[in-house]
Amino acid sequence: MKYSQLVEQIKIKKSFLCIGLDTDYQKIPKHLQTAVDPIFEFNKAIINATHDLVIAYKPNLAFYESQGIKGLVSLERTISYIKSLYPDIFLIADAKRGDIGNTSAMYAKAFFERLAFDSVTVAPYMGRDSVDPFLSFENKWVILLALTSNEGASDFQFMTDNGEKLFEKVLRKSKEWANHERIMYVVGATKAKELKGIREIVPKNFLLVPGVGAQGGRLQEVAKYGMTKDCGLIVNSSRGIIYADQTSDFAAVARQKAFELQTEMSELLDLRPF
Amino acid sequence: MKYSQLVEQIKIKKSFLCIGLDTDYQKIPKHLQTAVDPIFEFNKAIINATHDLVIAYKPNLAFYESQGIKGLVSLERTISYIKSLYPDIFLIADAKRGDIGNTSAMYAKAFFERLAFDSVTVAPYMGRDSVDPFLSFENKWVILLALTSNEGASDFQFMTDNGEKLFEKVLRKSKEWANHERIMYVVGATKAKELKGIREIVPKNFLLVPGVGAQGGRLQEVAKYGMTKDCGLIVNSSRGIIYADQTSDFAAVARQKAFELQTEMSELLDLRPF
Repeated sequence: MKYSQLVEQIKIKKSFLCIGLDTDYQKIPKHLQTAVDPIFEFNKAIINATHDLVIAYKPNLAFYESQGIKGLVSLERTISYIKSLYPDIFLIADAKRGDIGNTSAMYAKAFFERLAFDSVTVAPYMGRDSVDPFLSFENKWVILLALTSNEGASDFQFMTDNGEKLFEKVLRKSKEWANHERIMYVVGATKAKELKGIREIVPKNFLLVPGVGAQGGRLQEVAKYGMTKDCGLIVNSSRGIIYADQTSDFAAVARQKAFELQTEMSELLDLRPF
Repeated sequence: MKYSQLVEQIKIKKSFLCIGLDTDYQKIPKHLQTAVDPIFEFNKAIINATHDLVIAYKPNLAFYESQGIKGLVSLERTISYIKSLYPDIFLIADAKRGDIGNTSAMYAKAFFERLAFDSVTVAPYMGRDSVDPFLSFENKWVILLALTSNEGASDFQFMTDNGEKLFEKVLRKSKEWANHERIMYVVGATKAKELKGIREIVPKNFLLVPGVGAQGGRLQEVAKYGMTKDCGLIVNSSRGIIYADQTSDFAAVARQKAFELQTEMSELLDLRPF
């Protein structure tokens, strides 16, 4: 998907919401657990209930890999379902990959050719040649980890060399590898106060922001410091939407939760000139 | 596998060789490409020809993932084959995973429960809570990226804060998370001159060393600066062994290449007191 197409979707849907499909067999409603493919049935219900409110879905690969071959089948069916019915929705493989060049090339092939993902999350530790192979596919995106939302983010990402923190260096260096039409960054919503400085380094790139719950305050803070004239934000919610209810009403409740976020996003977008 | 069992295997086999099963359909001999499961047939032939010379095999997940479900079947068959015939061989999932806690827990489940790997390579960027879930499985290992063998290693891994480089900080901090019986480190053979300093930080941990070819010089340098009284090294060779020949003789040639490395390792081990 091209940058312009993504921006267009945000304008049409008045949303920059991504739903994380972290689908866990243990957590899906009991009545689905006896289906032939419970994970796919759950995803399908969530997608049917929310597709008009979101601009992206983000399957988390670990949840599918933990189910072995069965999980990979569920993932393939989920992607086919989204791509055939809703081809304008941006698909993120949350996989945190990154390896030496020939290996990253194999991962890129797995996500961009075999599966029809538009983007993949990539870990920066191994540097440029571990990221480059993902950048060689036309209209596909790298979403590079910069500043993550978890507690362990503070272990290494704030390391400082000559006044520059590691996550800032990741942003600055990777700008040399591709422009804002090919590369996005993961920036945790729990780090909203860092967004201002991040926007000084990457003023135009999209940021994938996980860690936003249904709490309005945080979303407003993310928009205040992170939004660009093209929006520049994809805000993800996983558990807060897909597991908001665990009865047979789960899809309707997921829609309600997504609708609340999308409504707030619509207001935040209206404050910005397009 | 326990630390003591791994050390025992090194003593018995007089080897610290790992063969990387980076099996690429495009590179395997033509006569195998028509088999029902060409990747597994290739791996089986390599394993049959080399199992007495190695203490570890390291399937590279990207190569299997790039083949989709078929690839995962080949991987599962390969692991079952090794574990049923050669249960003393240490199995490394070269996967470079690492994510927030609940996601890393799912990856750990995938590699340690669903697949019978003894260890998995993990990227440190997201810090402690991204690594911890892999450490909660008894007799399973984390192999944390420290200093990698690729060109891009210089992009971030040498960043220096208060005289300490990023890869040194990864070593120092992660020592607090688990001892040398649970955690190993990836240190590229191309960085042999750094091994002395690395051994000052992690004197007892095993190092997984990729990037060694059939060139004796480099292996000797790695042993000189990296070997401990328990050996403390697992040296990997992938392409230099498995693709040394691409005719129907490939397995015999792979054995010969592995034998050359094992012979040299045997001599290097003899120089050390056990």
